[in-house]
Amino acid sequence: MRDPGEIVSETFCSFSITDVRFPTSKDLDGSDAMNPDPDYSAAYVVVHTSGGNSGHGFVFTIGRGNEVAVTAIRSVESLVLGLDVNEAFSDMGKFSRRLIRDSQLRWIGPEKGVMHMAIGAVVNAVWDCYAKREGLPLWELLSQFTPEEIVDLVDFRYLSDQLTRQEALEILRRAVPGRDRRMQEILSGGYPAYTTSAGWLGYSDNKVETLVRRSLDEGFTHLKMKVGRDIEEDSRRLGKVRQLIGPDIKLSIDANQNWGVNEAIININRLSAHGVYWAEEPTSPDDVLGFGAIARAVHPVKVATGEHVANAVMFKQFLSSGAIDICQVDACRVAGVNENIAVLLLAAKFGVAVCPHAGGVGLCEVVQHLSMFDYVAVSGLMQDRWIEYVDHLHEHFVHPVEIVNGRYMAPRSPGSSASMFPDSIADYEFPSGRIWREQ
Amino acid sequence: MRDPGEIVSETFCSFSITDVRFPTSKDLDGSDAMNPDPDYSAAYVVVHTSGGNSGHGFVFTIGRGNEVAVTAIRSVESLVLGLDVNEAFSDMGKFSRRLIRDSQLRWIGPEKGVMHMAIGAVVNAVWDCYAKREGLPLWELLSQFTPEEIVDLVDFRYLSDQLTRQEALEILRRAVPGRDRRMQEILSGGYPAYTTSAGWLGYSDNKVETLVRRSLDEGFTHLKMKVGRDIEEDSRRLGKVRQLIGPDIKLSIDANQNWGVNEAIININRLSAHGVYWAEEPTSPDDVLGFGAIARAVHPVKVATGEHVANAVMFKQFLSSGAIDICQVDACRVAGVNENIAVLLLAAKFGVAVCPHAGGVGLCEVVQHLSMFDYVAVSGLMQDRWIEYVDHLHEHFVHPVEIVNGRYMAPRSPGSSASMFPDSIADYEFPSGRIWREQ
Repeated sequence: MRDPGEIVSETFCSFSITDVRFPTSKDLDGSDAMNPDPDYSAAYVVVHTSGGNSGHGFVFTIGRGNEVAVTAIRSVESLVLGLDVNEAFSDMGKFSRRLIRDSQLRWIGPEKGVMHMAIGAVVNAVWDCYAKREGLPLWELLSQFTPEEIVDLVDFRYLSDQLTRQEALEILRRAVPGRDRRMQEILSGGYPAYTTSAGWLGYSDNKVETLVRRSLDEGFTHLKMKVGRDIEEDSRRLGKVRQLIGPDIKLSIDANQNWGVNEAIININRLSAHGVYWAEEPTSPDDVLGFGAIARAVHPVKVATGEHVANAVMFKQFLSSGAIDICQVDACRVAGVNENIAVLLLAAKFGVAVCPHAGGVGLCEVVQHLSMFDYVAVSGLMQDRWIEYVDHLHEHFVHPVEIVNGRYMAPRSPGSSASMFPDSIADYEFPSGRIWREQ
Repeated sequence: MRDPGEIVSETFCSFSITDVRFPTSKDLDGSDAMNPDPDYSAAYVVVHTSGGNSGHGFVFTIGRGNEVAVTAIRSVESLVLGLDVNEAFSDMGKFSRRLIRDSQLRWIGPEKGVMHMAIGAVVNAVWDCYAKREGLPLWELLSQFTPEEIVDLVDFRYLSDQLTRQEALEILRRAVPGRDRRMQEILSGGYPAYTTSAGWLGYSDNKVETLVRRSLDEGFTHLKMKVGRDIEEDSRRLGKVRQLIGPDIKLSIDANQNWGVNEAIININRLSAHGVYWAEEPTSPDDVLGFGAIARAVHPVKVATGEHVANAVMFKQFLSSGAIDICQVDACRVAGVNENIAVLLLAAKFGVAVCPHAGGVGLCEVVQHLSMFDYVAVSGLMQDRWIEYVDHLHEHFVHPVEIVNGRYMAPRSPGSSASMFPDSIADYEFPSGRIWREQ
């Protein structure tokens, strides 16, 4: 990316880590069958360089436990401080493996849970720093890499029985010819979104109706409702929403892991009477074989998961075995940009649509870069793909997502869009910030 | 368990949590292909009650990251303090679900990684407290429960497509008739062990030879060697050990996840020339489908895993699909005794031998209780089953394991054998304890 002649001595010199929490549970925003009262939170990290540059990243959590993510990010710090910034940028595959493969930290995953998410926050922060240095939004930076540079970002150790480096190269090379046209398309028309804003379980019927109408007015053609607490109530609510939206708007459901495998099959088949596009997280996100059984039994309803899928090895199994029809990558669950590129390549190989998980705080901002990169340089497909959109907490971001007529507009600012306003970080710091002192 | 008339008001009132680390990396004890320099560590918790009782538990780690486990245990504290002790003891299934299902903490797993391990430490500590109160070693306490009481300990939500509550009850009821005889057998003859003490990658040939001879002298009939760093060297070392031990001693290998799926198949088939009983952790512990492919390709070499299997949902898949032949439960990886009972029941249903992972610090002490309970009350089988034994760090435990002629002797002291000496906890506290100040 960078001429070796340009290299100046610049190292990573410190992490600022903040426990940021938003008291969202008060309005039941984000309430679902498993998460009745989330306080959307971020273990927020700013990685500083000796040259005065910085990169921003975070672990997204829903409240309690955010302090564990803070400690986990702190535990990564000693592996990063003192590293040469340009060396890291010039081989982000190596940088990412350095953190993921640290033998002692790996033990408390391995490659899963909050330790892995913390590594993801740091990897993403360094990508943010890199993209800012290049003066490019992250999706454009990634979209300018050659196929060889992209595969170098990926760790194939546990993937190559289903996706070799050579196969990944071939996927990426096939996408080279249309890159410019697709980049222009993204820049002019953005990327489709679907919305979950109307569908939280804690909302009253009146609030749901108002929000559904607003979503349609805003141009959304695909809505998602939370289900899973009570099947009678789920069916009633879903029927009501289908009446409101008519037959042509896509309607998906999300059980947030609340069912066992057999229960999921019965319930999805019942709810499918209301015209269900996909059924999301019907059961445990670890249950590849269970998802396979569900997918076979509820077809043609599609089965979706990803926001809690721990790593690329799990995605490899879901994708290669036909256990899911919709791959919901999350920017902040796996170990950052590099591992998500592995997942995009696996999804492309197995022909599964990528529809990222977003919402919470900051997830929309960051994950849009992955879908846009996927369209330009990996799958080359946008048909029947949507990025989740929820209208929470965007006001805290320096470059918030821009939704026009139900589509994400392409980010133009350098970086990964993860930067929060310093005042927001300070005000919502838990438990010492202004907002929490006032609770 | 307890007559309601006996209930006195006693609540859980505080956690003492200590970051305990042993500088084992200096002697390359525990060195393997993925973990070249472990410092065996414990995030050690003592749960105190208002009645002056206490229970001990821990997360085992290998050094860096132990502080994350400490923070994770602290994050569980608020869910436990103030609970009635007798109420907890009378429904340990409910107590365990309370911690595992906390919606906010669950997000940073879910049910995996360091958050889940921390919940396991607390659940185990409360079991330790319970067994001490009953004046029984944990394995005996569990072995006195009725089949109904045992299934009440298990969360079947994500398991019942492969193991229903009714099937579990039938397994347990079939084992009732022989309980007394098997308990006497354990009390008089103990439970078979195998040893990894000779097999660390960092040891010289001479040290390996000395330790192999010592293991044979001590009565072990099953040894395990670490492999996975270099296949030529692995083959050479394994051949040398096979020469030393002759054809009748069982010899297993452990790659500690260092291979991809295809690489594992090639390497295991090559090493099988030296007479390999099982091949442990050939690849990622998340790769159920990959393990299935390996198991089919290396038969009759058995395939083993478990020490890094995140939860019962993963075990369900490994066991129900025939992806493993040996189920290596670990006392401190999943969420404690309750989830391990689920795994024992799954292994019994699918006829897979349970050979626990142990070693590190304290793992031998705690896990022996699970195997002994399994023999008395669940599978009723001991043939071709062994508990791992490694001779490290037992001197720090108040009731260390007792190995006689290659067998674990039944623990007789009340509790789960997890109690460390207060002086050991203080001396090895990181970084302020005496040992670390002297490094």
